[in-house]
Amino acid sequence: MTSSDFSVTSKTRIIRAPERASYDRDNAYDIIDSTPMCHVSYVIEGEPYITPTFQWRDGDNIYWHGSSASRFLRSAVGANVALNVMLFDGVVLARSAYHSSANYRSVTIFGQPRILEGDEKNRALQDFVDKLTPGRWDSLRPMSDQEIKATTVLTMPIEEVSVKSRTGGPIDDDEDYELPIWAGIIPIAQTVGQAIPDDRNLPAVDMPDHVKEFELG
Amino acid sequence: MTSSDFSVTSKTRIIRAPERASYDRDNAYDIIDSTPMCHVSYVIEGEPYITPTFQWRDGDNIYWHGSSASRFLRSAVGANVALNVMLFDGVVLARSAYHSSANYRSVTIFGQPRILEGDEKNRALQDFVDKLTPGRWDSLRPMSDQEIKATTVLTMPIEEVSVKSRTGGPIDDDEDYELPIWAGIIPIAQTVGQAIPDDRNLPAVDMPDHVKEFELG
Repeated sequence: MTSSDFSVTSKTRIIRAPERASYDRDNAYDIIDSTPMCHVSYVIEGEPYITPTFQWRDGDNIYWHGSSASRFLRSAVGANVALNVMLFDGVVLARSAYHSSANYRSVTIFGQPRILEGDEKNRALQDFVDKLTPGRWDSLRPMSDQEIKATTVLTMPIEEVSVKSRTGGPIDDDEDYELPIWAGIIPIAQTVGQAIPDDRNLPAVDMPDHVKEFELG
Repeated sequence: MTSSDFSVTSKTRIIRAPERASYDRDNAYDIIDSTPMCHVSYVIEGEPYITPTFQWRDGDNIYWHGSSASRFLRSAVGANVALNVMLFDGVVLARSAYHSSANYRSVTIFGQPRILEGDEKNRALQDFVDKLTPGRWDSLRPMSDQEIKATTVLTMPIEEVSVKSRTGGPIDDDEDYELPIWAGIIPIAQTVGQAIPDDRNLPAVDMPDHVKEFELG
């Protein structure tokens, strides 16, 4: 384990299927950067809540945002949250139900978020737009003070982390390989379709490169 | 609201962007049935955990499974969990950062899971396989008693539910439509690739229809 890897804690120790576990920072960042969506788990009055939302990463910190009126975001301040980024890569069909599985890449980050303010908040919002669609921020109608106020941006350090993934074909019991059962993988991917221009775009406005060349990850 | 719709509770009331909310049961079931993956949020000793896992639905109940050794599954018995099924359908690029958004379909189910045993458990495991890959269960090497014991299946009724979704193009402030800014949608979809047979399939074994015709939803 190099100095840049994650320390294992009681929260991040992977007990089940340890061969699928990783505490490698680069590996975690590859996964986080491969899709803009995440799920965040909040506890409010002792009970679990969950919500999907956009996430973005800058260095060793992860960010997400929402309405300043959101009970989830407000509950998160000074509290622990768990954030998961997952890519579902395929259905693994083994010769037994028990060894059938999914291929996936999953990162869970535990932490206490803090709210960004001022310049740091503005930079984070720009970063969100420009990481997803490089260069778009400067082409947009600027955010008003009221819009910035109505938006809450949270961040937490990517420090307490577990990574779990599975790739490759089925791994069956030795004796099951003799059975006449079809086994294999059905790959699943998140794919980008052809961009659809808004009906009300002005005639002289061309599709920008950040749309033409849009990709996930 | 018809009798089959969900009642709104303090947990499921959608405060933010109520125009994106739905409590329609058929709509929720369409979303749940459109992808086999979900995220489950657990609370253990007051702190949030989150994990992606397969889900399947039978009637008005949702199911998921895992290792009987899983601390998540064990923590869930007699406790509240929140389960989310989400499809990310696109990036919505508005003329301002503030009105930019995602298209998505999201269902959150709150409840107290129970563990299935005996015939009910066996039926649920068969159901899981056959809903994903119709008819596959009978073609597989049967599950051993030990495998069944090592697997925990949880279920909860689909009763306390919120559905949130967004479709369509950007909705900008009136005056922003005059700006020479490209707006539109970049569609995202979960797509199924060409099945990859395992190297060790026996020569006489053909690809079954449930693989050839595999689809999500």
